[in-house]
Amino acid sequence: MSTSHAIRHIRITPIAFRDPPLLNAAGIHEPWALRSIIEIETASGLVGINESYGDQPMLDALAKAAPALVGLSPWALNAMEQRVAALVAPPAQTASEFLGQQVSLAPGTHVSKTVAKVISAFEVAMLDLQGQLAQAPVVDLLGGAARDSVPFSAYLFYKYAEHIDQPYAPDAWGEALTPAQLVAQARRMIAQYGFQSIKLKGGALPPDQEAAGILALAQAFPGMPLRIDPNANWTVQTSLKVVRQLRGVLEYYEDPAPGLEGMAAVARAMEREGDVPLATNMVVTDFAEFRRNVDLGCPVKIVLSDHHYWGGLRATQRLATLCKTFDLGLSMHSNSHLGISLVAMTHLCASVPQLTYACDTHYPWQDEEVVEGGRLQFEQGSLRVPTTAGLGVTLDREALARLHDNYLHCGIRNRDDLGQMRKYDPGFTGRQPRF
Amino acid sequence: MSTSHAIRHIRITPIAFRDPPLLNAAGIHEPWALRSIIEIETASGLVGINESYGDQPMLDALAKAAPALVGLSPWALNAMEQRVAALVAPPAQTASEFLGQQVSLAPGTHVSKTVAKVISAFEVAMLDLQGQLAQAPVVDLLGGAARDSVPFSAYLFYKYAEHIDQPYAPDAWGEALTPAQLVAQARRMIAQYGFQSIKLKGGALPPDQEAAGILALAQAFPGMPLRIDPNANWTVQTSLKVVRQLRGVLEYYEDPAPGLEGMAAVARAMEREGDVPLATNMVVTDFAEFRRNVDLGCPVKIVLSDHHYWGGLRATQRLATLCKTFDLGLSMHSNSHLGISLVAMTHLCASVPQLTYACDTHYPWQDEEVVEGGRLQFEQGSLRVPTTAGLGVTLDREALARLHDNYLHCGIRNRDDLGQMRKYDPGFTGRQPRF
Repeated sequence: MSTSHAIRHIRITPIAFRDPPLLNAAGIHEPWALRSIIEIETASGLVGINESYGDQPMLDALAKAAPALVGLSPWALNAMEQRVAALVAPPAQTASEFLGQQVSLAPGTHVSKTVAKVISAFEVAMLDLQGQLAQAPVVDLLGGAARDSVPFSAYLFYKYAEHIDQPYAPDAWGEALTPAQLVAQARRMIAQYGFQSIKLKGGALPPDQEAAGILALAQAFPGMPLRIDPNANWTVQTSLKVVRQLRGVLEYYEDPAPGLEGMAAVARAMEREGDVPLATNMVVTDFAEFRRNVDLGCPVKIVLSDHHYWGGLRATQRLATLCKTFDLGLSMHSNSHLGISLVAMTHLCASVPQLTYACDTHYPWQDEEVVEGGRLQFEQGSLRVPTTAGLGVTLDREALARLHDNYLHCGIRNRDDLGQMRKYDPGFTGRQPRF
Repeated sequence: MSTSHAIRHIRITPIAFRDPPLLNAAGIHEPWALRSIIEIETASGLVGINESYGDQPMLDALAKAAPALVGLSPWALNAMEQRVAALVAPPAQTASEFLGQQVSLAPGTHVSKTVAKVISAFEVAMLDLQGQLAQAPVVDLLGGAARDSVPFSAYLFYKYAEHIDQPYAPDAWGEALTPAQLVAQARRMIAQYGFQSIKLKGGALPPDQEAAGILALAQAFPGMPLRIDPNANWTVQTSLKVVRQLRGVLEYYEDPAPGLEGMAAVARAMEREGDVPLATNMVVTDFAEFRRNVDLGCPVKIVLSDHHYWGGLRATQRLATLCKTFDLGLSMHSNSHLGISLVAMTHLCASVPQLTYACDTHYPWQDEEVVEGGRLQFEQGSLRVPTTAGLGVTLDREALARLHDNYLHCGIRNRDDLGQMRKYDPGFTGRQPRF
């Protein structure tokens, strides 16, 4: 084994795992969710790992950029970023254009942020290597833990009992289309994980039904912080109608209406009526959009960060400083993910003192894992911050092979919630805002 | 020797070193400049070092906060920051109030930023320890070097030939009060250090004489970037008069007029006339002031950072992200300092890709040193980024004892350029803006 810690090889393994039929603004989750597993190996034989998006454009970008890392020190994050930026040109279309009032294939996916996404994919794996070299957990490389454990929220979805094409046995959660079913889903998730706040993915059913769902949750869980996120699938008028129905109930109001202008219109009207802050992971998704929000007088008051598309753990810490400077709150977004992403989020949140909102996570919706030891365990809705070197998780190679086999056989190469919904409803247009 | 790397002891040693009679807006440098040397020792016997301000309030704050660090891991920067903030309450008066149109004892010193200054003092020493633990240079802990060497500028001062009280033999630089003497000073400094840009500390002589000085430099060094910094000692009207005299000559125009409002007035008038950007280390000195500048439409286009009062190397990196987000330039300020500060600045600048301006440094004005090996060597005006573990410099204990002895005997406990000037001119009021 060489004593050089220079990067010798990068392996990208696409994986797929079971995903329930969860409803959202764009349509419905397909039976398989895609991710990529990144392994960065040094000449000395250390391996740093990470998890990121697994759709085809992302895999192409990772494959294009990976060779540029060979020979770099695991500490050379700036050099990595420069090389990735030079190789992976950003497409002209911005996320806000893509995610505005047009059709989208899935909510909260930022197809155009390729450079930031690839940088993040490599950065976390390099931080995992740095932690192994320094014999320190990743959180220490980020300034050390400001808290010992990180709270997550119960992320509720409207859902069908099983996928239309029945690719495997139905999940254990059952159908959730009524307020009573939603409350039952929340009770089950909270009993199992101990979450102490609730987020509902909305934008799927008619808004009155979703408002009724939130009110039922408020009654069933008195005092528990509640959020709703219709992924910009409501007009400004609908957004205002719903927030009036939910007066006094919401912790924050996430992406009701499309575009920063739509959010600003909602904010202006709400200013006269109440103090529920607007939150987003759709209109403030990069530093340029952060500036636009400031230029408009900050209609959005809470940014849902996500290191996967903000450019990594360090970039998200810098976003935290921006939020603090402009008196904005900071919370955290998630896509369907497994344990490596979850633990990276945990290190990051622990290192940001003002990240006091419970983070989003899709984790309870997954029943597979790629890390050794299997599924990560929550305690009272929180994850303990690892104290071992690096990320504190390692790959289960049998699981990785099995999940890669899923990928090879599942037939999905790009997430398409819209196309999936058309299997149920051929007339579904996906036009947004729908309500 | 214990294997625990927990912090066991913090030593703060005030030092004083010879400083030439340099003129500025507040008055004139005293014969001795004060600094503090911070040593943080782990149970395992490692020692991390740093250099910071040495005036009495800073020494008091360091002494008050230091015990709170005992027992912390060198990685626990967030915990250190929380403890320091809890112990060292910020005074109500802000730097901008202090440094506005009132009398100041010295330019560019931020007496009210105690928390950020103490955090920075400890952070760099803890990063030095982290680097020793990880066997990596500090720049690697900051994301790795974006450049191999960091350029500095020739920092010219109007000056007298010797101090009025003649505490030691006159310095080798001689008098500089005329354009010809200023050009001679620049030639000498550039011959010795290889600097490739020039900054003139102004605000000391009548503005017409200082403008003549800049024009003489422009003629003597064609094409070399030139800056002038009168430390807000000019009215808006004078600021505009001078910038018209210097049309086409300046790289940037630093703190001509007092206060953000004064700078904004200069910016508004200049908008119609030219494109010299305004720079500051006086009105954007913390994140709240950064926001005020944004709220006013960014009259200041370039922020001179300084990790000593911005809260450390990592906080300054975050300032860099703020600057990038709002399309502001980033340069670097200095006070009188020795090699530990210089090397910390070098690690920091190397880690910030967009910090492309040559940094300010007072280093050529000092002839003493506290690090082993003596004075640091510039190559073509730049310093090579250290590649050894930690900061890459260690204390020369004999030098430290000698400089501490200077401190004990020099009689100065708080910098007072104003009081020193009154020894030359008893009628000197120090009222600003003077011109």
